[in-house]
Formats: sequence, structure tokens, C-alpha cells
Amino acid sequence: MQMPEPRADILTGRARIVERLRAALPPGAVIDDAIELKVYECDGLAAYRCPPMCAVLPGSTAEVSAVMRICNEEGVPVVPRGSGTSLSGGALPTADSVLLGVARLNGVLEVDYDNRFIRVEAGRTNLSVTGAVEQDGFFYAPDPSSQLACAIAGNIAMNSGGAHCLKYGVTTNNLLGVTMVMADGEVVEIGGAHLDAGGLDLLGLVCGSEGQLGVVTEATLRILAKPEGARPVLVGFDSSEVAGQCVSDIIKAGIVPVAIEFMDRLTIRAAEAHVAAGYPDCEALLIIEVEGSAGEIDDQLGRIIAIAKAHDPVEIRESGSAAESERIWKGRKTAFGAMGQINDYMCLDGTIPVSELPFVLRRIGELGAEYGLDVGNVFHAGDGNMHPLILYDANKPGDLEKAEALGADILRLCVEVGGCLTGEHGVGVEKREIMTAQYGADDLEIQMQVKDVFDPQWILNPAKVFPLEVSAGRRS
Amino acid sequence: MQMPEPRADILTGRARIVERLRAALPPGAVIDDAIELKVYECDGLAAYRCPPMCAVLPGSTAEVSAVMRICNEEGVPVVPRGSGTSLSGGALPTADSVLLGVARLNGVLEVDYDNRFIRVEAGRTNLSVTGAVEQDGFFYAPDPSSQLACAIAGNIAMNSGGAHCLKYGVTTNNLLGVTMVMADGEVVEIGGAHLDAGGLDLLGLVCGSEGQLGVVTEATLRILAKPEGARPVLVGFDSSEVAGQCVSDIIKAGIVPVAIEFMDRLTIRAAEAHVAAGYPDCEALLIIEVEGSAGEIDDQLGRIIAIAKAHDPVEIRESGSAAESERIWKGRKTAFGAMGQINDYMCLDGTIPVSELPFVLRRIGELGAEYGLDVGNVFHAGDGNMHPLILYDANKPGDLEKAEALGADILRLCVEVGGCLTGEHGVGVEKREIMTAQYGADDLEIQMQVKDVFDPQWILNPAKVFPLEVSAGRRS
Repeated sequence: MQMPEPRADILTGRARIVERLRAALPPGAVIDDAIELKVYECDGLAAYRCPPMCAVLPGSTAEVSAVMRICNEEGVPVVPRGSGTSLSGGALPTADSVLLGVARLNGVLEVDYDNRFIRVEAGRTNLSVTGAVEQDGFFYAPDPSSQLACAIAGNIAMNSGGAHCLKYGVTTNNLLGVTMVMADGEVVEIGGAHLDAGGLDLLGLVCGSEGQLGVVTEATLRILAKPEGARPVLVGFDSSEVAGQCVSDIIKAGIVPVAIEFMDRLTIRAAEAHVAAGYPDCEALLIIEVEGSAGEIDDQLGRIIAIAKAHDPVEIRESGSAAESERIWKGRKTAFGAMGQINDYMCLDGTIPVSELPFVLRRIGELGAEYGLDVGNVFHAGDGNMHPLILYDANKPGDLEKAEALGADILRLCVEVGGCLTGEHGVGVEKREIMTAQYGADDLEIQMQVKDVFDPQWILNPAKVFPLEVSAGRRS
Repeated sequence: MQMPEPRADILTGRARIVERLRAALPPGAVIDDAIELKVYECDGLAAYRCPPMCAVLPGSTAEVSAVMRICNEEGVPVVPRGSGTSLSGGALPTADSVLLGVARLNGVLEVDYDNRFIRVEAGRTNLSVTGAVEQDGFFYAPDPSSQLACAIAGNIAMNSGGAHCLKYGVTTNNLLGVTMVMADGEVVEIGGAHLDAGGLDLLGLVCGSEGQLGVVTEATLRILAKPEGARPVLVGFDSSEVAGQCVSDIIKAGIVPVAIEFMDRLTIRAAEAHVAAGYPDCEALLIIEVEGSAGEIDDQLGRIIAIAKAHDPVEIRESGSAAESERIWKGRKTAFGAMGQINDYMCLDGTIPVSELPFVLRRIGELGAEYGLDVGNVFHAGDGNMHPLILYDANKPGDLEKAEALGADILRLCVEVGGCLTGEHGVGVEKREIMTAQYGADDLEIQMQVKDVFDPQWILNPAKVFPLEVSAGRRS
């Protein structure tokens, strides 16, 4: 992974910059010790590492504003970081940057059940947003696998999804407003606890902008009343094609389950070995979950099972208890960890039209064979958001590079069949250079001009999203 | 309604511009006859009228591109128009502009049931999108009242909603991609038949941008499988407060009806006089509709009726037949027309937090009394999207101005309680000058800088969205 050369003038001015930051923030909020900085040298894409010049942990929007004002004056790049769980290197520092962690901004500012929203500081973890309202029967819908750790700030940056987004939408569908610190330190409010306002939809623009436009410090989020119950059914098939057709037919029937998860044989076996979830040993497994009252669940699952039966499954198992539901989900939820038991892996995030599932799965198998690498498939089938897991050996010279090349081929395949490079993990540094597979030079130029408006000096989250060569003239 | 002075140099160059447009387009596609131009002098906000310099009716994306290239070279403003149903003057011409109507662009380009999308030319009417897929059991969800006439192009410009958007979302939630002609004639593709792609979300930015960023000529839209059935229940209350509380309680219970519509006594009586819908004569009426299989409908309506009964309603009437459902909806769907039988009216479009409904309804009554004008309320209660209808007499000198002033006061009230100026009708010319109630100077400046990126000459849809004084330096 090529990264831009650090700016020497910033590195030589390091002592002055650290001193200015120290003067502006409370004791302990500025970290410049090399050992302590190791915590921040990578995120969830741990193959790439680079410690920042220093890290700051502000405790309020005003402190974030002070940091941005100083960095803007000094022309210092700033890398915003939520909990550092990004799988695309969205929070990977550069050597000349200030790492701005929002983890201390984790409070609940307002809960309003009548209008179904919660306002939180953006460093709050995803799951603890639900934690703040579940005693009153509410929840926050987007549920990335990392929801125990990941921050709302990062969810907004990446427009994160999760298994249950088939029904409830991704972050942009559940975000009502933000408080954002602009590149020059100005604090702005965008959106609020109401429908889309007039004027240009800057909230939609900010969501998914990967820290390129500002630092989000507070968020107003839609909360939903928790459904009375939920129940999964597990369906095994001896063919990926048939499993894909079953998904299509459920969607076509107008049923919207909260989740349709897909696992292939490699990941089924890994999950079985890891947690003994009781999965059948078959080519493809679907976990389909519906939510609602008992009557609604019976009605929807009845129709889903009728459709599944018409596809000659090797097994259908409707959960009969909370314990059984948990066991069915356990294999899926720990699938990434289970694959990690086998080898190092790289998790991709391409999205494709659902009807292309059988073709894409077959091509992924062929591409993997060409590279001599195994690829497991476990993903959100209902909306075509794939997560191919490429297994490789980090200690074997050249294996990472092979996995990277295979990953790029798979993502190009996703674009070729009418899909896109990323469903929910973002571009980050990982997919930066293959953005050209999705966008022409004019498209990227327009996107960069929009960034120019918000961040004229290009100090926000450097070396992400835009190919280095394409953005070279703009980066300071 | 103040409008900018037409540019004299464009008006004197009119003959040359018309000639260039004629040379680029097929016979009959350029209209400059004063009588024929009267068709285009206003849209659904008929209080304001101004014929354009000329009108063009291109029949393809390439022809739209040719028009934009010429207008860009000549520095001529272009007013894009779908079907001209805008209630905010979104397609109101200026005297020096070319009116660009997309009505001839009405074809279906692709239907894909497996991936649940349809690709249409953007001049196609909303209802005929559903018309193209309903024989196969699908529909397009956003349903503005004007759906028989309004074009997808206008729906995208205004991010249109409708009665059923509580469950299915507004246009931005159902739009997957667009083909757009830029101000300089370049043709770009944004989005596609997949989840949100990487990079900045320009599709979200374009949706709701009121023709400020480009001319959308094709759209890829999400289609949904038609539910097995739908059934409304009508609930009458003798208090708006209690009706509002009932709405809150339904939402809080985690039930998502497809629609919760609210009518006050004035509109109930007007609807009764107009179509004899059989409504009770009471203070507030809710029409709550659910969709799904028979089992799901019974389950959801049962829970809704239990909640409604706890609020001491004066009447609860669950529809027992298709004919009865139609009659219940007829009064609501013709309510605007019914109000038009009483007097001229101005339809507002403010959005508020649902919990503020009782307070806002009371204040609207008080404000109406202060101005000596009646205000009817009929709106989408589930998402707080209000449509106060101000009755006035267009033939009575000063009455329109009084209605405008009352309308501005009501919209300011919406912003004050945490809402916004527009839910689904857009800013247009109507709300242009009160944008300052919602946005500070810096906010508007950022929005205008984003427009600068797409439309450096500011030729697209002049004198809309941004207050004239605020945008004065930018308009040519």
C-alpha cells in the first residue's frame, strides 16, 4: 500500500504543533509518546500501519473545534477516528498527521420517544446507543458486526450497514442530523429531528464521506420500537445457484425479512468447527429472520418456508426457542473469527445485483483457484452486499500481495456486473486505487471539487478515497 | 413575488438563441409563439406567472445535452420542467430563460424483477412507472397526490413523498441512479442498480436539489412487490391533541402503517360536502392503513384499534370491503379539491416533530385568526409532514399578500419547534426568501459553493431555492 510522503515541514514543526495542541486541550488529551501512539497506528485493516505525528482525544465539540483551528492554521492533516474498527483503513494515519480520536465524546445528549430520536456524542459505540433506550423498548437499527466496539462517528463516515439493514436501511436511512466541525474549526448543524429540509441535502452528502468533509461530533439518530419478537429459519441447499434463486423469490414475493444471510461451504465448515452451531454440511446456507408480533412472524415465516420448500432444500429448520435462535445466529456472527482460526484473511465488501449472485460466486471460485487462494463467502444476500473472505498467510512472502490482487479482481468483477466497490465498509485506503474502475476522471473531479468546498486545504483524512495520483495536485 | 430583472443581452439575442436551438433539435421541439408559451408560464403555484423566452421539448438525453451546450455557451438560464405540478414554483420561468420540458422523455428503458428496479426516462409520470410493472405484481412506492400527472424528474428534483411514505420512504429512499446532463452539456451517470457506492454520495445530493445541479433525463428506481392486500381504519376524535397522542402511541408501539393521515374539522366538512365520504363530524380524523397478507393486516389493525380505543374516540370504522376502503380514501384524496370549492387556497408543506402536533395545530388556529384567514389541516401525521391550507380570495385585493405572510409565519413556527420549511414540495420560489429562517449565512454559502461546482455560471433553474439577495453576486 503506497502512501504519500510525509511533509517534512510539518514533521520538523512537530514540537510546536504538539505544544499548541497541549495548550488548547486538558491534561492527558495529547499523546506523542511513541509507545502510546502504537495504539493508533492501524485500524481493523491491520495489514497497514503507520503511527501519526501525535494523537489528540478531545472531550467536547469545542475542543474538536480548537484542534481543527490549530491544524488548519498549521496546514497539518487530521485523521479522524471513531473506535478504529474500519476494515478499509479509513482511520489509517499518515506520518505527518494528527490522529483525532472521538472516543471520549460518548455521552447521550437527548432521548425523545415521542419523536423517536436519540441525540448522542459521535464517539458513542453503536450498541450502547441501543443500550440507552432498550429499557424503554426501543433500539437503533444499523448493526455492523463490530457494533460492540464501533462508534457512531465511524458508522456515519462509512454509511455502515449490518445484517438487519435489509429491512431497516443503512446509516443514511437512520441518521437525522449531525453537529460537525468544519476543516477550519467552525461548528455547523446539518439536519435535525425532522424530514429532509429544503436546500441541498448536505446531510446525505456527509453520510458516507469518510471523514473527507468534516469531523462529526454529535448525531441525531432515528430509534425504532423494538418488535415483539424475532425468529430465524435456517435453510440448506446443495447449490449456490438455487440458494440465490430462493433469495430472489422471497424478495419478489414482497416479503421483507429483517435479514437474509448467506454462507458457503467453506465458511459453514469453519463456523461448525469454531462454535458447533449445528449447521448442515451443504453447499449454501441461508439464515432468514423475520420480526414482529407472533402472528406476523407465523404468517411471514410460513410464506418463506413455502417458497424455500419449492427449491428442494437439504434442510429447513425453523427456530423453536430463544436458545435455538441464538445458536443459529452464533455460527454466522462468529464466521469471520472462525475463518481467522484457519488463516489470515482479507474481508472484501463488494455489492452486486442480487440476480448476479450465482455467476459472481462461481467466478470468485475460479479467480481464487487461479491465484491459489481460498475464498469464503458469507454475506447479506437480501441486498447483494457480499463479503468474500480471502484466506492468505501473512508470514508467507508475496501472499498478501496476491490476496490484494485477487481482491481487486473480485471488486472489479462486482462493478462489471453492475454493482459497486463497497457496500458498507467504505473505500478508505484499501479500495482507493481501484476507484477508477467505478468512476471516470470527470466523476472523481466533481467529487474532489465538492471536497474542495468543505476542505480547501485538503487536510481532512489524507490519502483516502481518491486515488493518490488523481488527487496529487490537491494534497498539500 | 419579486423576481430578478431579465438579462437584456439575452432578450436582445433571443432570435439567435432560438435559431441555434431550432438547428439542434427536431422540428416542433422549440416553441417561441407567445400563445403557445402561456402553457409554460406557471406551474402548480399558479399565483405566479412569467412566460419564458422560449421552450424546448427535447426527445432524448442527447438532445437535452445539445440544449444545455448551447445555453451554456450563450449564458442563458435554463428552467427544467417535469409535468409542471410543483406547488412551490419550482418550474416558474424567468423572462430571459429557456424552459426545458422533459415530458417527451417518457419511455421505459429496462425492467428487472430479479433485482427489483426499473429504469425509465425522467419525464415519465409517477403513476405510469407503477403502470409498467403492476401486471407483474410490482409497484413504485412514492405516491404524491399529483401522481397521475407529476413526472419522475420533478419527484427527484423535490424529493417527493406522499401518503404512503411513512412505510416506504420518500424519493431519495427509492432512487438508485440517474443519468444527468450537466450545465455544460456533459452527460454523467450517478449511482446504479446497487447499494450506495464508494466516494461522495452525489446521488443523495442530486435528489432534492430542485434542478440546481443538472437536468436528470433517466432514473433507475426501486420497485417493490405489491403487498397481498391493504385495509384502512378511520378513527374520529373530538380533540386534535388526543388524535396526535394516538399517532405517537401507534408509532411508539413499533407498528409501521403505510399511512397515517390527519384531517381537521374544516377539511372533514369540506370533504363531506364534496364527495360524501361518510366521515364523522368531529375535531380530528385519522385514516390509518396497513398492508400485507390477510394475517398481517388482521394482526396490525387489531393492535392499532386497541391503541385507538384507549384514546376514547368518537368513532372507529375498520373497512370491511374494497368499496368501503375506496370511500374512506376518497375524502382524503380529494380534500385539496374540496377546499378549492370553498375558496382559493395556498398549500404549505412544513414538517415538525410529531410530538409538537397539538401545539402547532393550536398556534396555526391562533395565527389564522390574527390574519382573519381560515386554515385547514390535512397532512401525513405519521412523519409530521403538515400541509396547512390557507384559504383566501384571489380577487380580493391584499388577500394573497396576507396569505403569503401567514404562510411564512406558519413555516417559521415549524422551524421554531424543531421542524423545517418543506417536507416534500421543495423550496422553489415560494419559500426562497424564508430559507434564512432555517439556514445561517454560512450554511447557505456552503450550499451555494456546492452549486458552483456543478453550475459555475448559475444558469440552472434561476431564482429558486436561495434568497435573491444572498445569491445576487452569483447570478449572471
